[in-house]
Amino acid sequence: MSVLFVGLGAMGAPMATRLAQSGHQLVLCDVRESYARELARLLGATHVPLAEAGPAETVILMLPDSPAVAAVLDGLLPKLAAGALVIDMSSSAPAATVRLAARAAERHLDYLDAPVSGGVARAVTGELSIMVGGAEPAVERARPLLAVLGSGITHVGPSGAGHAMKALNNLLSAVGLVAAAEVLAIGANFGLEPQTMLDVLNASTGGNHATRVKMDRFVLSRAFDSGFSLRLMVKDLRTALEVAADTGTPVPVSALVLQEWTAAGRALGHTADHTHIAAYVEGRAGIELHRTAADPSADRRTEDAR
Amino acid sequence: MSVLFVGLGAMGAPMATRLAQSGHQLVLCDVRESYARELARLLGATHVPLAEAGPAETVILMLPDSPAVAAVLDGLLPKLAAGALVIDMSSSAPAATVRLAARAAERHLDYLDAPVSGGVARAVTGELSIMVGGAEPAVERARPLLAVLGSGITHVGPSGAGHAMKALNNLLSAVGLVAAAEVLAIGANFGLEPQTMLDVLNASTGGNHATRVKMDRFVLSRAFDSGFSLRLMVKDLRTALEVAADTGTPVPVSALVLQEWTAAGRALGHTADHTHIAAYVEGRAGIELHRTAADPSADRRTEDAR
Amino acid sequence: MSVLFVGLGAMGAPMATRLAQSGHQLVLCDVRESYARELARLLGATHVPLAEAGPAETVILMLPDSPAVAAVLDGLLPKLAAGALVIDMSSSAPAATVRLAARAAERHLDYLDAPVSGGVARAVTGELSIMVGGAEPAVERARPLLAVLGSGITHVGPSGAGHAMKALNNLLSAVGLVAAAEVLAIGANFGLEPQTMLDVLNASTGGNHATRVKMDRFVLSRAFDSGFSLRLMVKDLRTALEVAADTGTPVPVSALVLQEWTAAGRALGHTADHTHIAAYVEGRAGIELHRTAADPSADRRTEDAR
Amino acid sequence: MSVLFVGLGAMGAPMATRLAQSGHQLVLCDVRESYARELARLLGATHVPLAEAGPAETVILMLPDSPAVAAVLDGLLPKLAAGALVIDMSSSAPAATVRLAARAAERHLDYLDAPVSGGVARAVTGELSIMVGGAEPAVERARPLLAVLGSGITHVGPSGAGHAMKALNNLLSAVGLVAAAEVLAIGANFGLEPQTMLDVLNASTGGNHATRVKMDRFVLSRAFDSGFSLRLMVKDLRTALEVAADTGTPVPVSALVLQEWTAAGRALGHTADHTHIAAYVEGRAGIELHRTAADPSADRRTEDAR
Repeated sequence: MSVLFVGLGAMGAPMATRLAQSGHQLVLCDVRESYARELARLLGATHVPLAEAGPAETVILMLPDSPAVAAVLDGLLPKLAAGALVIDMSSSAPAATVRLAARAAERHLDYLDAPVSGGVARAVTGELSIMVGGAEPAVERARPLLAVLGSGITHVGPSGAGHAMKALNNLLSAVGLVAAAEVLAIGANFGLEPQTMLDVLNASTGGNHATRVKMDRFVLSRAFDSGFSLRLMVKDLRTALEVAADTGTPVPVSALVLQEWTAAGRALGHTADHTHIAAYVEGRAGIELHRTAADPSADRRTEDAR
Repeated sequence: MSVLFVGLGAMGAPMATRLAQSGHQLVLCDVRESYARELARLLGATHVPLAEAGPAETVILMLPDSPAVAAVLDGLLPKLAAGALVIDMSSSAPAATVRLAARAAERHLDYLDAPVSGGVARAVTGELSIMVGGAEPAVERARPLLAVLGSGITHVGPSGAGHAMKALNNLLSAVGLVAAAEVLAIGANFGLEPQTMLDVLNASTGGNHATRVKMDRFVLSRAFDSGFSLRLMVKDLRTALEVAADTGTPVPVSALVLQEWTAAGRALGHTADHTHIAAYVEGRAGIELHRTAADPSADRRTEDAR
Repeated sequence: MSVLFVGLGAMGAPMATRLAQSGHQLVLCDVRESYARELARLLGATHVPLAEAGPAETVILMLPDSPAVAAVLDGLLPKLAAGALVIDMSSSAPAATVRLAARAAERHLDYLDAPVSGGVARAVTGELSIMVGGAEPAVERARPLLAVLGSGITHVGPSGAGHAMKALNNLLSAVGLVAAAEVLAIGANFGLEPQTMLDVLNASTGGNHATRVKMDRFVLSRAFDSGFSLRLMVKDLRTALEVAADTGTPVPVSALVLQEWTAAGRALGHTADHTHIAAYVEGRAGIELHRTAADPSADRRTEDAR
Repeated sequence: MSVLFVGLGAMGAPMATRLAQSGHQLVLCDVRESYARELARLLGATHVPLAEAGPAETVILMLPDSPAVAAVLDGLLPKLAAGALVIDMSSSAPAATVRLAARAAERHLDYLDAPVSGGVARAVTGELSIMVGGAEPAVERARPLLAVLGSGITHVGPSGAGHAMKALNNLLSAVGLVAAAEVLAIGANFGLEPQTMLDVLNASTGGNHATRVKMDRFVLSRAFDSGFSLRLMVKDLRTALEVAADTGTPVPVSALVLQEWTAAGRALGHTADHTHIAAYVEGRAGIELHRTAADPSADRRTEDAR
């Protein structure tokens, strides 16, 4: 099956590579044309300038945001034949996705939103988690292709649902991390050991992904190297809050948490790792959270952090 | 070993029962004297009016709050001989506990705070989770007694640390439940299925105890029967926020969440189950979260909810 | 001077009427063509369908929002001759205004944003307050025209500044009203009289426009008839929060307050008067704020409420 | 009339001085005994150690907080004869005041809470603003004495109402200052001049005491010298939030604002002037608010700042 793959960034390049290696005929496309040409050469694929990208059976997009997706599809949709399949794997805004899917439907195209989580490492190994929004037949049609890229493929609802679900997961993750940092900061200022608190929380009702994984691995270790930046988290939170606003859903806690991340981005730089939010909460509280000096458990945790 | 047990409420009565059944010599005490007399008769124990409660080797308190604990100890501490052990298993305020422990130390008494979680069911089976604050030798001394009541006994720090830890766990749990409700409300208003969202969140970074247990069992089921009331949660949150204020720790998200619970208590009544907070968030968002009509997984979850 | 006036709604119609009555040659335009025709007949003006609206020396826009403004200008800008003046008096989004002003500059047009406050009553009497953004010469050029519509014309900065300033004023007004309602609710639950509290606040540092005007006139009176709806306030707050997000300005209190208004809109209907937000805060607090039964001062306040 | 005056701090000393100079027979009392003796000598008054302070017709307390007031009255109340008048002019907690007033009533004493605002300068000139809580006859009895100390004496309700009112005024003032700082920060980051914004806000619905007085005089001037500290504001906010919690009044915005002040206290030191909160909001937003370079209006504002 021939696939036009648009967007060869940190995630797009390894994803395209896996598709080429699994025998798909690829046409690569990126704003950086010489880079697309070089990658095509390495993968035994072809490349095409964006302006000339034309008919294709399947199109995969892996772009920075919704405006970029809309710009590419403004040129591309009119060139696609009825029956073609478009898969937007970017982290786009659900409202924009709904509009683009409607335009695609008018042209009798299949349209899916299929954002991913797992980071570059899992893009390389084809173990991404993929949340898919769109009609059931289109999802089944795309499944073999998606199976090359990810190990967990969940059909979460109609068009836009994939993009919404990704933003909502990151929102709940973001609240959990900020709240865990607040709770550990209170406890540490009272005299409790961070590691002891994490053990108790994880054995009780306070546990969340941050207390189970991120706090120990990225914060207490002072490594702050999850590979997911503050900037990207802020973008996902704005997306989630826009869905809330567009649906008239009041979410005071979520709205406040976005402001916390905005402040942390100002204070620490938007390229900082997103787990630095804990350092922001700590700094405001006048403490720093560390692993206990001689804690033999320091490296014991091995669950995945994304 | 003879034990004076003060406070025979919903939790205290089964705890005293276990101690009696495991061979401890008990003296029971409660403001409701006739109830204490009757329970003593059933357990083959003795009872004593509060005003006459006197010297004892060990005293266990299971009372509503810190003022009640302080009132009992005002009368009792002077009557205890040096070397006696006092264990406050109530959910008291850490600052008050620190003061009482200091007064106990002046009289050469051992003093522990040892609040529990797990609810009445686990009090009956002796499987409570117990967070202990105090000096190491006192903890070791109390361990055989505590082992009759709980299966998970964690020494979390000096005096007050147990009470602080319990409040902090419930704070993080409370934030997690409110935030999960907000996220599900946004998603539901956008068109996503609650159960699908929970599955994705639990497989990703958004998961917390609410998404894993409470949301499905108590909220989507519309059962709201966790057995832990809004009133008690508000009390624990106030305790946690007082520790934050006393230690000068800024915690905007936690402070906001306490207000959410306060509002829910006003709207739904303070005796409502604490999981009704989700109904409060739903109502504000104009939706109601349900299990999917024919969901075969509806009863699959069996993790503990407390 | 001939003026093309686009948008003849509740505000636009009286504004156009004043311009016609002051001797300006008007061309009226509205999506409701027959209404535009009828109003033109009454005012001795002409009318034109939107699609045919063509060259004009001056264009005034009074439309619902930025997308409406952009849609009209997409068709209109190419038809205007260099040197024409465009004045957007709608409550648009500042970022969109900056983009439209740049496009206008490319075509050598003067472009101003000039949102108004004061409501329909002051539109009729020509006493609107007008906040103008744009270049100084364009402001001077527009001043005679604006002077027919408003009595207070303030040049607040470059393009977009007018729209930003209006949103920011309403944001601070919205926070002040919610906060005043919270404070009165605490006091009333403690046993203080609302009117007494207002008197003390207004004589001290707690005073704001809500305590001075809105609380007594629209809330304690239970009239809720300021004439400015919840829906419009939510729109302005979203605009202000977008400016905050676009400029990376963390504003936790403002973000939370927008959620309060969103919740009030859900609960009370978006067509409710914006002062109903106080009823929302009251309801949550379990009280209702009233003037004292026999308060002779009940009608004494005469300051303007907008 | 003989008056026992307890508490000779920054406020108490000038207040006692005014009473002495207006012909009242004073007995002075302070924990710093030698200071009390010296001041008594200067004023031609007498002094007494706290432990020996005995019967008096009238007692005035000007102490740091409720626990200090309770400690003094524990010793003093039993020594007072029926019919004596106790006036607590400290900024105490309303709930504690209600309890103390009840104890005083049991002993047939008159009890008033009469906190002040206006700062040291107005204590010296006898122009304090005084909010009085208690029974009407007691208020009338105290009025001649209070008239020596303040020019605005308002009877706001029963016992505790004075203390509540003062905390509530400062709460609304605190929200207004934080919100004004947020709004100016957004506008400044967008490119608006602070002084222009203040002028527009004050002419419209956004105005509050901060935009009218504090922002220009203490913040844009970079003087930060209002004379009222962050620490005192945090104390008043905690008092107001306790009244909210005790009365079950949900106040999300107020609760969040207290956290902002707590964070500012951590960052800037609790002895910093309370107007430094604006510098905290600015710093988080990456800007600094200044008067326009050559603004001739810089010193025009002369309203009082407290």
